Amino acid sequence: MRLLYHFPLSPFARTIRLALAEKRLPFEARIEREWERRPEYLELNPAGTVPTLIEESGLVIPEAAVIREYLEEAYPDTSLLGRGTERVEARRIAAWFDGKFHHEVGRALIGEKYLKRLSGGGQPDAAALRAAYGALKHHLEYIGWLAETRKWLAGANFSLGDLAAAAHLSTLDFTGDIDWSHSAPAREWYARVKSRPSFRGLLADRVAGVLTPAHYADLDF
Amino acid sequence: MRLLYHFPLSPFARTIRLALAEKRLPFEARIEREWERRPEYLELNPAGTVPTLIEESGLVIPEAAVIREYLEEAYPDTSLLGRGTERVEARRIAAWFDGKFHHEVGRALIGEKYLKRLSGGGQPDAAALRAAYGALKHHLEYIGWLAETRKWLAGANFSLGDLAAAAHLSTLDFTGDIDWSHSAPAREWYARVKSRPSFRGLLADRVAGVLTPAHYADLDF
Repeated sequence: MRLLYHFPLSPFARTIRLALAEKRLPFEARIEREWERRPEYLELNPAGTVPTLIEESGLVIPEAAVIREYLEEAYPDTSLLGRGTERVEARRIAAWFDGKFHHEVGRALIGEKYLKRLSGGGQPDAAALRAAYGALKHHLEYIGWLAETRKWLAGANFSLGDLAAAAHLSTLDFTGDIDWSHSAPAREWYARVKSRPSFRGLLADRVAGVLTPAHYADLDF
Repeated sequence: MRLLYHFPLSPFARTIRLALAEKRLPFEARIEREWERRPEYLELNPAGTVPTLIEESGLVIPEAAVIREYLEEAYPDTSLLGRGTERVEARRIAAWFDGKFHHEVGRALIGEKYLKRLSGGGQPDAAALRAAYGALKHHLEYIGWLAETRKWLAGANFSLGDLAAAAHLSTLDFTGDIDWSHSAPAREWYARVKSRPSFRGLLADRVAGVLTPAHYADLDF
């Protein structure tokens, strides 16, 4: 059986869980706590980050950005990138969330509020949290703008752009950090993504020590 | 003519300059100072980062990770990813430098020491610089280990892994921040990459306010 090392608070692992589910590729999900730096895991992925995918053949594919390109090449039938110039925009949106959004919002909120505590790393930095919540509002507005001008975030077709965006947002929704009243079109787009069968696994996540709001798993939130 | 917006201190832009040169795709290079946040540039790439590539057709491709996948798909003749499982390792090495190396080393050294000053952002943070120089040693050891056990960083063939690694290291070599005596095999590998014709453009870089050491452009450093 295909095996995926992941952690529920990792938006990168969430993107790959969604991508595998969209492509209908069954996998066993195994929790890996990055901060434990297990020697056996570092042999699979020297960077020590989740996710890492292991194919039945034994092929090891670490890092979300590497895995998603691999999945597109190995299993092209359900394409998550589309064709031609659509691929540029789908990758741009995914890079936006993996880079800019994670750097400005996700890393601070998840890192300061939860990973620090789970890994015994001390108190959150209040200034970093304030800056992250401020940036989150701008990102919700940007998503809302994209969702109002296009059917899906990268254009006419559902793509990796939607998956990456939803993965990052779902991590923060899981921890109750998103105020959806800030953007109605962003909320409407997220409700559409959340209703896809590929999302079910994420909605069943629970993490000890993290209080997940009731609306997290509610499709009619 | 194909146009690339770049900045000499951006390792991401350097990766694409190298990739274009390796694929023998001529381009006009235009300097973009990210921190000025020019409205015309933000229309091309809302993230405001370099590089952004504009094809003669007018197609706009922002972000290094997006551009390099685009270039592989649009111009496959000189592949920088190789075949099959080689592609996983080439992308893993590139992701290592774009992610881990940049996060632990490059962002701090270039950001604190140079971009802060160039953009009028204040004094460098001494603790951040110390941590970055410490991490740099570990990365040089990792490169040395890869270079001793393989012909090129990702395996038997020259790849995007070498280009990304060399782009990130060359940015720090340009600012005189690398002590090559730390790893002889890393230095030997870098000398091989630096001797490639694709590197010539980078070796001619100059930035006002940055003192570039004499060995930077010396192939026999």
